[in-house]
Amino acid sequence: MSWFGWGEPAEPVHLPPAAEELLRAELRADDRSTPPVGLDEVRLPEPRLPARAAELLEHAVGAENVLRDRLARVRHAAGRSYPDLVRLRSGDASGAPDSVVLPGSREEVGEAIAICAAEGVAVIPFGGGTSVVGGVEALHGPFEAAVALDLRRLDGVVIDRESLLATLGAGLTGPRAEELLNEQGLTLGHFPQSFEHATIGGYVATRSAGQASTGYGRIDEMVRGLRMATPAGELVVKPVPASAAGPSLLELAVGSEGVFGVITDATLAARPVPQRRSYEGWSFRSFPEGAAAFREMEQSHASPDVARLSDEEETRIALLMSSSGSAAERAGKAYLRARGHEGGCIAIVGWEGTDGEVRRRRARTRTHLRHGGGVRLGSRPGDAWLRSRYNGPYQRDVLLDRGLAVETLETATTWSRLLELHAAVRGALTTALSGRGTPPLVTCHVSHLYASGASLYFTWIARREDGAELDQWRAAKEAAGDAIVAAGGTITHHHAVGRDHVRWMRAEVGDTGLEALRAVKDRLDPRGVMNPGKLLPDDAG
Amino acid sequence: MSWFGWGEPAEPVHLPPAAEELLRAELRADDRSTPPVGLDEVRLPEPRLPARAAELLEHAVGAENVLRDRLARVRHAAGRSYPDLVRLRSGDASGAPDSVVLPGSREEVGEAIAICAAEGVAVIPFGGGTSVVGGVEALHGPFEAAVALDLRRLDGVVIDRESLLATLGAGLTGPRAEELLNEQGLTLGHFPQSFEHATIGGYVATRSAGQASTGYGRIDEMVRGLRMATPAGELVVKPVPASAAGPSLLELAVGSEGVFGVITDATLAARPVPQRRSYEGWSFRSFPEGAAAFREMEQSHASPDVARLSDEEETRIALLMSSSGSAAERAGKAYLRARGHEGGCIAIVGWEGTDGEVRRRRARTRTHLRHGGGVRLGSRPGDAWLRSRYNGPYQRDVLLDRGLAVETLETATTWSRLLELHAAVRGALTTALSGRGTPPLVTCHVSHLYASGASLYFTWIARREDGAELDQWRAAKEAAGDAIVAAGGTITHHHAVGRDHVRWMRAEVGDTGLEALRAVKDRLDPRGVMNPGKLLPDDAG
Repeated sequence: MSWFGWGEPAEPVHLPPAAEELLRAELRADDRSTPPVGLDEVRLPEPRLPARAAELLEHAVGAENVLRDRLARVRHAAGRSYPDLVRLRSGDASGAPDSVVLPGSREEVGEAIAICAAEGVAVIPFGGGTSVVGGVEALHGPFEAAVALDLRRLDGVVIDRESLLATLGAGLTGPRAEELLNEQGLTLGHFPQSFEHATIGGYVATRSAGQASTGYGRIDEMVRGLRMATPAGELVVKPVPASAAGPSLLELAVGSEGVFGVITDATLAARPVPQRRSYEGWSFRSFPEGAAAFREMEQSHASPDVARLSDEEETRIALLMSSSGSAAERAGKAYLRARGHEGGCIAIVGWEGTDGEVRRRRARTRTHLRHGGGVRLGSRPGDAWLRSRYNGPYQRDVLLDRGLAVETLETATTWSRLLELHAAVRGALTTALSGRGTPPLVTCHVSHLYASGASLYFTWIARREDGAELDQWRAAKEAAGDAIVAAGGTITHHHAVGRDHVRWMRAEVGDTGLEALRAVKDRLDPRGVMNPGKLLPDDAG
Repeated sequence: MSWFGWGEPAEPVHLPPAAEELLRAELRADDRSTPPVGLDEVRLPEPRLPARAAELLEHAVGAENVLRDRLARVRHAAGRSYPDLVRLRSGDASGAPDSVVLPGSREEVGEAIAICAAEGVAVIPFGGGTSVVGGVEALHGPFEAAVALDLRRLDGVVIDRESLLATLGAGLTGPRAEELLNEQGLTLGHFPQSFEHATIGGYVATRSAGQASTGYGRIDEMVRGLRMATPAGELVVKPVPASAAGPSLLELAVGSEGVFGVITDATLAARPVPQRRSYEGWSFRSFPEGAAAFREMEQSHASPDVARLSDEEETRIALLMSSSGSAAERAGKAYLRARGHEGGCIAIVGWEGTDGEVRRRRARTRTHLRHGGGVRLGSRPGDAWLRSRYNGPYQRDVLLDRGLAVETLETATTWSRLLELHAAVRGALTTALSGRGTPPLVTCHVSHLYASGASLYFTWIARREDGAELDQWRAAKEAAGDAIVAAGGTITHHHAVGRDHVRWMRAEVGDTGLEALRAVKDRLDPRGVMNPGKLLPDDAG
């Protein structure tokens, strides 16, 4: 990962001519270049970790595991949200920690936390650093100093093959965890877009959902046990399959975003590596038609593992972006036009498992999609999606180099309110940005299905307001967040709360809900050193 | 429901001659009769609700909804555990509340709680009164008076058909909720053995699992939203399908057993009423063989909706209990003997859904069971199980009349430890009771499957120790509980904690876990009026 973005893709990202044309025509993009500053131009605050705290931390984890160099601090200064990247690229690393601490065991995590709690140093747990909601910015709270606790050395694995459980160290990245599991013929099946960098601890702490969550489940459905080091001691949730022994402490730790403590390992459900993956595209006449088909399919237990439905605008732009102008493409368009699907929506569905399972489930899914008005487009769109499933953040880097703003946000609600929520958020984003003179492209897809509802994932792209990038972003963010709350959506389906969604937490969970969370925080972290400024609004204290 | 037991069954419960013979031969049961005392002989403590509190409560809910009569107090004195029934039948209603309050709305629940918190009166939320862990006994804690808050008047229903969600009042019983849902073509599919009396609020507050939880899911998998009145205000969890907005407050309220507040309604996932139910019996050579077949089936996503596997002892006794001595029965036994299944285990499996779903899923399940060594016994055992699925508590009443003790307890663990746990609990119960001169029959079945493990449900029957019934029960309970903890099981899979499992809560959730729960309790119920003595050990305060 680069210090200012997502990093070098395996294959370079190019915008096809049709995409260039679109950006010019609809966003008034020009050819200006807006590259990041050099690393040596980045402005870092003076490190303020008191000598005594530094000495104690060095004693606890080894001096070589307490880093203070420029690159380490810049790399831990921010996550990978659009405002994070705007600031980093402009040379603003004011969110950097004073030091980066790399504990080598869960005991060392406990010691480091105890030292910080005693010395009054803020602790920011750090996994892959991929937060898009400001979750890893080193806010100091009331403390003079803050350290990032980088968990990369917690990389152990213990597998219970018979129970299909894997206890994984918090610092394992997605690819490394899969590699270790694959050696035993297993997989987690958890593939968020941040997969290449995100970690097990981050998945669990942020209540993450992978792209295949419709089939494999969200991380909260996979996690069976965990350990979390807190200033008040270690919370251990044993990995029993189910229990009626009171409220779920597992579900209290999942999604706690480092404000109660640091998740050091998690026991997750694993599955056999699928023999086969089969992905394909479908077309629907409209977003409401596709959503109804998805609902009926999910409620009939006929869903695939991956199910995504782009709205009309996302479909239009995706088709432009991938247009080659070939004869086959023209024939395909003519076919869809003849079926009344011009200007419609594309869906991607995918099954994973044994040959037999894939065949059987695919037949069922297809029956339901056909019944819901869908037309099958074959495997090419599915394969193309699979190849590009992690490309979004790389593409964003390219667009940021071109004077554009790119932001994503997501929510979920019941089926009965889904279309209302879709219209409300699209409208809010369009109005807020157009009002600033930067009319956006706003696209959306459904990507996680439940019997009672679904998620909506929005992307907006607009010409960047030079010198007021963060104001522009904030105007859009606030408009979208307010619209989500008003339309009955959750303020986040899988990106978590971090710093950026704190202002809506009271609307989300209410006064009594906030009191309950605050009570746990106060008991487990009485001095308040754990990840200040995240998840819980200060005014609830 | 009768005041001293489960009540009159639709058809009278008779013990067949073979069962009589078994009890005589193996438990030294004789023909003595041990009926309950009469209602007028029951000893009730003097009611101590202060006049001011009574007046305020009457003002809040109406004078006609504050009950003090003998029958009302006796009916709210205890749940339906074996020790509860021992005490009630002997005329001991020392667990009775001073009054029974019946609020008519969630606002009235809130008012009643606020009054009790202000006046220092303990509040015991009361649904169907079916707790088997002492969850509804009116323990007073440090307070002079205690009221049972009977929620039967909270009986509303709101259905969102499109999202397959039903918001149900806490006081609706299982049959009434099903009736209301069936009118719309829907069902919850939640059928615990207590179904006939238990309520929606009780299901959620105790983290209940129905007999068909392998297919329909546990109540914690069905619940999407809820409202809980607490002394600190109302907790409202909105029914979004999923959220990453921090720790799950839903999962903090589910299983809270009235110690934080009173759940007033819950939004639950509903399903179409199944067109068809198909149940059948299978035989396995041994419990380990059957458990391995169930594991493989569940991990292959091929499970039915109901999956139960009796161990050898439960199978032996069930066969004796249902023996008719017919030629068909003898032929069946000869067939199983020839297949090497003599002395083996019986399983019940059942599918529900559309005709097509049942056919398709049944074929898959059967393939896996056959592959695991199972022999199909046809639909008769399945139909017999369906007919008698709620009979257990009625049979218990009959056995209690006959000088016997009957107790059930349950746990769950990972597949890799299941057989160890099974042996440990069987051994502990046998040793503890035999040591007291009352060697028991100990039977067990697996009844809820998960990819990572399963539940174990134990029943023991022994000759009752006259005059030391509760000591006998306690010796068995402690031996079983200690064995469960030592063997890595959860202290309860679906009966909840109540009063009877409190002593193992520290072992279950650890010091830090208890601190977290205690913190929420202290914040939401600072005076501690909510259901004192349940769920949380006093020593953690």
